Amino acid sequence: MADINTIAQQFVEFYYSTFDGNRSNLSSLYRAGSMLTWEGTPIQSAASIIEKLTTLPFSKVQHKVETLDAQPSSPSTPSIIVAVTGLLQVDDSPNPLQFSQTFHLIPDEGSYYVQNDIFRLNYGA
Amino acid sequence: MADINTIAQQFVEFYYSTFDGNRSNLSSLYRAGSMLTWEGTPIQSAASIIEKLTTLPFSKVQHKVETLDAQPSSPSTPSIIVAVTGLLQVDDSPNPLQFSQTFHLIPDEGSYYVQNDIFRLNYGA
Repeated sequence: MADINTIAQQFVEFYYSTFDGNRSNLSSLYRAGSMLTWEGTPIQSAASIIEKLTTLPFSKVQHKVETLDAQPSSPSTPSIIVAVTGLLQVDDSPNPLQFSQTFHLIPDEGSYYVQNDIFRLNYGA
Repeated sequence: MADINTIAQQFVEFYYSTFDGNRSNLSSLYRAGSMLTWEGTPIQSAASIIEKLTTLPFSKVQHKVETLDAQPSSPSTPSIIVAVTGLLQVDDSPNPLQFSQTFHLIPDEGSYYVQNDIFRLNYGA
């Protein structure tokens, strides 16, 4: 099996390129029990998460990952916690926004799905 | 049992007030298998984590939590993922630094310990 840093990197590249390309294609990454907290709003289930993501009030979006850290979420499971910080450019706004996002990835049939997803914009001091 | 948002809030208040008061007292929150990734550096075990935290190159430090989100880390366990963003004031620097921190809390004998801890400063655009 690939090491968790490689898995985390591949996941993050896939996640944000899909998000920036066609957000509705993210549905394969979530399950019925998946949870997203988006800017403090809790959302549960793949269907509700995709509805939320596809109705966000912007059309063009581009994520730039700045830091990526991964850890096994327990000594006894192959699940992975991934923490990302980066910049988000939305529509034609000249100023990118800083964001932080935490994922909890659970192995499933040779791949991983997102059990937990917490997203926040960081507005700074 | 208290709901997870209350537990997360109490944990975060205790964690940062202890960090800002006397970092060596954080040792009770970690176990031998706990993991910290500090600014990209992976560290394992309570002893090594406390050694890292107590030798950070500042004496005065104050955390200000800006956002706090919590989710159960799986449908079947009472473990909690906590994501924090906030500001960090170090020594007599006039400019606070933005930070993000992710914790994975595992229940243990009526309390919780930190299995995963990922800390990053956010330098912005």
